[in-house]
Amino acid sequence: MRDEWFIRGNVPMTKSEARAVSLSKLELYPGCVLWDIGAGTGSVSVEAALSCPDIRIAAIEFRPEAAGLIRQNCEKAGVNCVAVVEEKAPECFTGLYTEGAPGREGARPTHAFIGGTSGRMREILDALHEINPGIRVVINMIALESLSQALEYINKRGIPAEVVSVQIARAEAAAGLHLMKGQNPVYVASFGGDERRDRDG
Amino acid sequence: MRDEWFIRGNVPMTKSEARAVSLSKLELYPGCVLWDIGAGTGSVSVEAALSCPDIRIAAIEFRPEAAGLIRQNCEKAGVNCVAVVEEKAPECFTGLYTEGAPGREGARPTHAFIGGTSGRMREILDALHEINPGIRVVINMIALESLSQALEYINKRGIPAEVVSVQIARAEAAAGLHLMKGQNPVYVASFGGDERRDRDG
Amino acid sequence: MRDEWFIRGNVPMTKSEARAVSLSKLELYPGCVLWDIGAGTGSVSVEAALSCPDIRIAAIEFRPEAAGLIRQNCEKAGVNCVAVVEEKAPECFTGLYTEGAPGREGARPTHAFIGGTSGRMREILDALHEINPGIRVVINMIALESLSQALEYINKRGIPAEVVSVQIARAEAAAGLHLMKGQNPVYVASFGGDERRDRDG
Amino acid sequence: MRDEWFIRGNVPMTKSEARAVSLSKLELYPGCVLWDIGAGTGSVSVEAALSCPDIRIAAIEFRPEAAGLIRQNCEKAGVNCVAVVEEKAPECFTGLYTEGAPGREGARPTHAFIGGTSGRMREILDALHEINPGIRVVINMIALESLSQALEYINKRGIPAEVVSVQIARAEAAAGLHLMKGQNPVYVASFGGDERRDRDG
Repeated sequence: MRDEWFIRGNVPMTKSEARAVSLSKLELYPGCVLWDIGAGTGSVSVEAALSCPDIRIAAIEFRPEAAGLIRQNCEKAGVNCVAVVEEKAPECFTGLYTEGAPGREGARPTHAFIGGTSGRMREILDALHEINPGIRVVINMIALESLSQALEYINKRGIPAEVVSVQIARAEAAAGLHLMKGQNPVYVASFGGDERRDRDG
Repeated sequence: MRDEWFIRGNVPMTKSEARAVSLSKLELYPGCVLWDIGAGTGSVSVEAALSCPDIRIAAIEFRPEAAGLIRQNCEKAGVNCVAVVEEKAPECFTGLYTEGAPGREGARPTHAFIGGTSGRMREILDALHEINPGIRVVINMIALESLSQALEYINKRGIPAEVVSVQIARAEAAAGLHLMKGQNPVYVASFGGDERRDRDG
Repeated sequence: MRDEWFIRGNVPMTKSEARAVSLSKLELYPGCVLWDIGAGTGSVSVEAALSCPDIRIAAIEFRPEAAGLIRQNCEKAGVNCVAVVEEKAPECFTGLYTEGAPGREGARPTHAFIGGTSGRMREILDALHEINPGIRVVINMIALESLSQALEYINKRGIPAEVVSVQIARAEAAAGLHLMKGQNPVYVASFGGDERRDRDG
Repeated sequence: MRDEWFIRGNVPMTKSEARAVSLSKLELYPGCVLWDIGAGTGSVSVEAALSCPDIRIAAIEFRPEAAGLIRQNCEKAGVNCVAVVEEKAPECFTGLYTEGAPGREGARPTHAFIGGTSGRMREILDALHEINPGIRVVINMIALESLSQALEYINKRGIPAEVVSVQIARAEAAAGLHLMKGQNPVYVASFGGDERRDRDG
């Protein structure tokens, strides 16, 4: 989906291309349960909801402005499988898993997308693995410090992980020319899960 | 989908991340008709088939080795909406549109993915626009000459197009380290179509 | 040299890293004659002047604001081997070669750096090759149309050329983090000349 | 200088473009003292020697094969300001500083280029800062773990540092086309020193 589709306010948003790469790395499958942590404008949640049948999504975002945008974007897309959880990660995880978001049943997440951690990467990853040791995790990072934290976690746990950097440049039309403009690079780490469920199972 | 999933032989394949970006730019919708031109291993066709309900796909690939791989990959994925057309573009277009691939009805393409043109970019684009002036086109390019041809076409027709370069680096594990390895950049041009059909109706 | 060193006004400037790559590709040698075409702020001229003994430089820049900046930057650097030529390329070439810039002897250029062409890439390259068929040329481009023109020239003449894209991201400190910010990619084409003069001769 | 100029054996070498960026970040000045740590083929030492008058260089490289290549490349370039130190960093630092390399006077380094650390980044940086708190340091990294170590050091010391990623793609000629091939990204961190010595004094 195009970035312009989303109602964005002043909340930073993963750009279209990095979102496409991240969704691809998530390897969602029908009936899966996705936690979108630091959900921002909800662009990942909305696009996941539209692309995957029977998915259930918790969009976790403690900033009220952003949580409001997620609700607006879900409504705009006609998506109703997304529960907006206006709390902090990982504190909200246990309640979310056992009791569910308001009006929803609790469910063990099969997938997590981490778009922001407020510096609490390790705690969040530990909590996710405790709830589901086989969870599929995709992390988007723009700070080198976040990359270091993810790397430390990966190395400490000995997890075979994939780390890619996604560097996009986009042509802007100006004076009859296409001028290439660099976007900010995004680091995408992904690990866990079982791809075979998607394709063969 | 991961690159390792595909049966590849010696045929070059769009890497996972560029494929995800390209599929996102295609903006497929249920019931659409995709022509995958220069289909290679069929990775774009297979992933499009698995992600989009009721899609009909013609995978056009004149090299017998590659055409065989497309068939194998479709079978592996359990996909039967892909007709492999072992002919040259754009010569095969008219027959494909009016009479259909063997055993399939002809259909006007709504989308085209161009992965290879054997130097005939302009002819192919002209033919596609003649068949469907509103077609959505996404082109993947690694040669600067192809980029020039696409640009010339875009500028001559005055088409508002998006051009991005996708530069991915991927960490390789070696001696306990994650060493970043650069992939080849892919230029992705996209234009035409009507995104609203996808999202709003 | 750091970008902040230069007096810049509103004139776009090649960023430090692309400038370093371009200067390296120029393969300047003591006593060489460099034409800096579309010289902008003069950053390439100044850095070339400081790094290469006995170099003579013509900084060709028809925009008065930019020409003024070149003079200021040369003065700031204490550089007096740069003649600022406030004229258009390639019209000024013949006079510059035969009669010289005011107060300077004419000289055949051994090197040309092309930072801007106002759409006249081919004419400029033709004129340079007429004056010195063995000239070393380095071109910086951010528009895909310029890249196309350079490529067409290279292919038509059958010149073995090097083309690289330079994509830099730079960490910005914010809230105790290093956030990677993408710069605009620069395409650098280089051809001609004779590297051996630099190293072995 | 072009990569092909250097005698390389099987020793990995910083590519031309990343070398140009790194040398630019070093901000060498006449009479400076450079320690090239993990000198590999000596490409940084040789290019520094040729570009900077009155420089003194210690190329520190404990692998005999690489040390031999440094000697060969210095000889090929006619450079005699480079002392090859076939020892480990940081163990060799004190002797090098107080007594000098064989046949050379000891000298406090003003600049350090770090091309390899064998995992001992922090020790090396600590030792360098003990010898000269105002030293200018440039580090090249391809492993994410090295980037983490450099970042940790920078953040712990509260050093204002520049970190850039350099991602180069280079056209390869094939079948009359220019195909863009990605090089491995290099992370370049630089900090310390005093640029004004270079330009103003």
